[in-house]
Amino acid sequence: MKLTDEQEAEIESQRTTTHSTRRVISPGIEDILFSAIPVLDHGFIRVTDYMGCDESIVQAARVSYGTGTKKTRNDEGLIRFLMRHRHTTPFEMCEIKLHVKLPLFVARQWIRHRTASVNEYSARYSKLDNEFYIPAPEHLSAQSTGNRQGRGEVLAGSEAEEVLRILRDDCARNYAHYEHMLNAGETRQGLARELARMNLPANVYTQWYWKIDLHNLLHFILLRNDPHAQYEIRCYAGAIEDVVRAWCPIAWQAYKDYMSNASTLSARDIDLIKRRLRGEDVTLESSGLTRREWTELLDIIDLTQ
Amino acid sequence: MKLTDEQEAEIESQRTTTHSTRRVISPGIEDILFSAIPVLDHGFIRVTDYMGCDESIVQAARVSYGTGTKKTRNDEGLIRFLMRHRHTTPFEMCEIKLHVKLPLFVARQWIRHRTASVNEYSARYSKLDNEFYIPAPEHLSAQSTGNRQGRGEVLAGSEAEEVLRILRDDCARNYAHYEHMLNAGETRQGLARELARMNLPANVYTQWYWKIDLHNLLHFILLRNDPHAQYEIRCYAGAIEDVVRAWCPIAWQAYKDYMSNASTLSARDIDLIKRRLRGEDVTLESSGLTRREWTELLDIIDLTQ
Amino acid sequence: MKLTDEQEAEIESQRTTTHSTRRVISPGIEDILFSAIPVLDHGFIRVTDYMGCDESIVQAARVSYGTGTKKTRNDEGLIRFLMRHRHTTPFEMCEIKLHVKLPLFVARQWIRHRTASVNEYSARYSKLDNEFYIPAPEHLSAQSTGNRQGRGEVLAGSEAEEVLRILRDDCARNYAHYEHMLNAGETRQGLARELARMNLPANVYTQWYWKIDLHNLLHFILLRNDPHAQYEIRCYAGAIEDVVRAWCPIAWQAYKDYMSNASTLSARDIDLIKRRLRGEDVTLESSGLTRREWTELLDIIDLTQ
Amino acid sequence: MKLTDEQEAEIESQRTTTHSTRRVISPGIEDILFSAIPVLDHGFIRVTDYMGCDESIVQAARVSYGTGTKKTRNDEGLIRFLMRHRHTTPFEMCEIKLHVKLPLFVARQWIRHRTASVNEYSARYSKLDNEFYIPAPEHLSAQSTGNRQGRGEVLAGSEAEEVLRILRDDCARNYAHYEHMLNAGETRQGLARELARMNLPANVYTQWYWKIDLHNLLHFILLRNDPHAQYEIRCYAGAIEDVVRAWCPIAWQAYKDYMSNASTLSARDIDLIKRRLRGEDVTLESSGLTRREWTELLDIIDLTQ
Repeated sequence: MKLTDEQEAEIESQRTTTHSTRRVISPGIEDILFSAIPVLDHGFIRVTDYMGCDESIVQAARVSYGTGTKKTRNDEGLIRFLMRHRHTTPFEMCEIKLHVKLPLFVARQWIRHRTASVNEYSARYSKLDNEFYIPAPEHLSAQSTGNRQGRGEVLAGSEAEEVLRILRDDCARNYAHYEHMLNAGETRQGLARELARMNLPANVYTQWYWKIDLHNLLHFILLRNDPHAQYEIRCYAGAIEDVVRAWCPIAWQAYKDYMSNASTLSARDIDLIKRRLRGEDVTLESSGLTRREWTELLDIIDLTQ
Repeated sequence: MKLTDEQEAEIESQRTTTHSTRRVISPGIEDILFSAIPVLDHGFIRVTDYMGCDESIVQAARVSYGTGTKKTRNDEGLIRFLMRHRHTTPFEMCEIKLHVKLPLFVARQWIRHRTASVNEYSARYSKLDNEFYIPAPEHLSAQSTGNRQGRGEVLAGSEAEEVLRILRDDCARNYAHYEHMLNAGETRQGLARELARMNLPANVYTQWYWKIDLHNLLHFILLRNDPHAQYEIRCYAGAIEDVVRAWCPIAWQAYKDYMSNASTLSARDIDLIKRRLRGEDVTLESSGLTRREWTELLDIIDLTQ
Repeated sequence: MKLTDEQEAEIESQRTTTHSTRRVISPGIEDILFSAIPVLDHGFIRVTDYMGCDESIVQAARVSYGTGTKKTRNDEGLIRFLMRHRHTTPFEMCEIKLHVKLPLFVARQWIRHRTASVNEYSARYSKLDNEFYIPAPEHLSAQSTGNRQGRGEVLAGSEAEEVLRILRDDCARNYAHYEHMLNAGETRQGLARELARMNLPANVYTQWYWKIDLHNLLHFILLRNDPHAQYEIRCYAGAIEDVVRAWCPIAWQAYKDYMSNASTLSARDIDLIKRRLRGEDVTLESSGLTRREWTELLDIIDLTQ
Repeated sequence: MKLTDEQEAEIESQRTTTHSTRRVISPGIEDILFSAIPVLDHGFIRVTDYMGCDESIVQAARVSYGTGTKKTRNDEGLIRFLMRHRHTTPFEMCEIKLHVKLPLFVARQWIRHRTASVNEYSARYSKLDNEFYIPAPEHLSAQSTGNRQGRGEVLAGSEAEEVLRILRDDCARNYAHYEHMLNAGETRQGLARELARMNLPANVYTQWYWKIDLHNLLHFILLRNDPHAQYEIRCYAGAIEDVVRAWCPIAWQAYKDYMSNASTLSARDIDLIKRRLRGEDVTLESSGLTRREWTELLDIIDLTQ
């Protein structure tokens, strides 16, 4: 990621301006406010505003519980209890706004999260920059053979080289054509931006402001910083998870313990564990599970040993 | 509204604590942050957190419009343009959190606004206070005869006195019974709070934290600070509108000009105005409007003069 | 629950009118369409419209997966896979509309589910009926001593009798006063409905139309047909769960197996199970869990045996 | 738009299968159910399910108004009143599900409407078809000179020909490369679909199921079947508006009269009209309006004549 001098100056100016506020602050996020955190080859995320911190979650929960609760449980214990029992509304009381630069095909996955506010750069209104995502060689993977929507092994040398050449050439040519079609001249009127942009491939970079509350953000991270998500959006979700850790460290730890690293087991799964604990042998055949459920269970707890 | 000494001390402590932040601030709202603004006899609203200001709306709009826009229109002009043309998404970039104390029947109207976050005092978890809304005599109105859902004239002396006595007596009695049912003792187990509370009338006060973005907040104010809304919720919406004026003065002025004080006219209405401008007489009979539409149009522009 | 003759005639008329449609139907829900299913003493739910069935979930999922998927997994397997892996969007493709009569304090819990459409009987516009929820003696419970928001043992004889008498008397008196305040007469103007209704306690019945998609409905049932929910709303959630079973039997079974009867275990919980399976003794002290987490884990799988 | 034989057979099969239902039906929409309505060169919309009709709006409104309302206003009058006064919730009681085939850049504008359910064809899971949107020559317009986000005049001959050639060639080449990169072989592993698709330009066709309620659908049509919307999405919004007219003809007519063909005038606009009606001359200079507001007002009512 390379910022223009103008962008770097603007960020520097934003970072050095401070105000006095009566609001609660999160020291961890103040540290990184406005800074561009690089993601992929040309992308970034930047926190441009936020509201609330761990304390805000506690405050919202306590209004529900009324007086007297204060003494019986400390803040950390309360946040962890709320997360463990999926009492999600207090986590909505924290809000964050990000400036994100991302490839169009990542934006298409991202936008499926509906409970958020978005303002995107308009390719009807302005010309798009000549920036395209080209995967690093180590992320250029073959189609997975076992998983219809996943990646398999990294492509070997000559095939990888050819793929990279194709991706680079097609971006360059399509962008050159994009600019050419836009250009007006003596004998040319210049195609409307909203039409010309249809020639750009889906790895072109776009950018947007994205605002979301902490509850919905954790849900976003859960789904997108996950092995089933496409590598490229995982890079963004991972960078955002680091932001959450700096912003609301207690809520983040609770999320790791009770959501991200937790496993959901069906009643049948639990029953199989109980049988195994009683010393019974359990097998796929006697389990009542499908082969796929059986494999998924064994990935969590190997009952065959 | 009377706050307890403990509440006043907490507010004072919140108001005198200041932090340094890199975020944008709104001076107008910093001034009133945490202070309780009285509404009705025992209610209040308090701003407990916020994010963004007029500048945030501009910033979000400019990312859509890209570079080059900066020079062609100043901030105020841009905000007014966005409001006039219902480009609502940039207004979602500002967020506010209120602590509200309000009668239960007002809470029931309020909660219909779904795009918001709420944490309410739980009457399952804690005992409700002995506070009920009793209308001031000048707001004790008869059923409107013209409008099935509105109020008419203020009740006259003896009827008003009787109504106030009934309201006060029933609250007092039902609350005394509420406390009595809750009480455990030697020969009593004490009824569960979640059951006992069903004996309390709908003018009992509750409280909640309520968080919402500016776009949805303006929609709330539009519907609730309106002559068709019940007087009691209008008091809250009016107090909140004052907060918005302090928070985002440019957006608030645009809202007044292009939404709150604007009128929507049908094509047929517009056509009648054009005919009148051309010197034709227009009448209900020749208008093609229903009687009600005709009256509503004349309330906006009297075409019969 | 007693319906008026007029209501029964209307339901009978709705049930005997049939149309020919090209849409998919759900035979199970056609059977119960429009019928009032009693809940509590005066409440009910009635399905008044629906869209889609199990097949609609499959159809929506298949557009995502494209061609070729059809052969590799049957419909039931696909629905169960979607539920197990929380691929929730295909479940949004089914929609249902209910007519519900319910006590006001239940309505207040219900309305917290925001992703739904509601039209409620307006007490500003019309007079409320003289119907109040009075718990059956076997549901008249004391405050739980262990759980601040739950119920404990059923109240014993004389205390229960007194509570029922209080609830009945206060309803009757407050309703009589409500009617009295409303009444206009020679020397009375009659209080506005929107004001008079504030005298009615929270066990008064209201009614609404409520429309929601299947994904959000299952979330509602998960939270409300749960031991932590208040008994009264559980009765409604249980009745609705029976409707879902009739409507989308495959989705319902998947919900039972993978959501309702499933357990979420933290990484630490899983580790303790693994240690127990290897023959180690595990104790609260050595577990790293809080006492509450430990108790919750043992409720799922007793590791101390 | 050309459907495959298989698709046509499936549609025919869906159309000829009928069921008996107790639900209300909309005859107008039953007629077109499942049929593919062509949009652009390869796109279509198809109604695949629906719930409710004009009558459902009335029914939902009447539960709010309670008994007695029935006599005072007929169904059409009630629907028109609700629309005129923006009582939007009863319109949420109708729901529709569409199958849509559309260019990716249109999908990106469409998805900004958040209150809807979507299942899209997954290019991670399946290969995309070789279908791209190529504008007809009469829609190949130059950038507007007056409006930064709009189109101006149609491109003249040779420039248009060149643009079409570029668009066609780049699609063909990039798709050929897409297929080539996907292909596995003796010496090739084949690039993962989720990566290869990034080479496809934004005029490639995708498809999805889209489900939305009538209130939000009318808002979609208002914004997208509008001169400020891009021509391509207007084609879809126009086709959907025709569907609404067939589905809920009374609601549609009310929408045309009170929303689509209505104008919103600021208090200052109204004041200028009043001054003109009184015979005063009004000019931009004396109006207090900005030049842009003045032009917009004169487009609605010419006050200078």
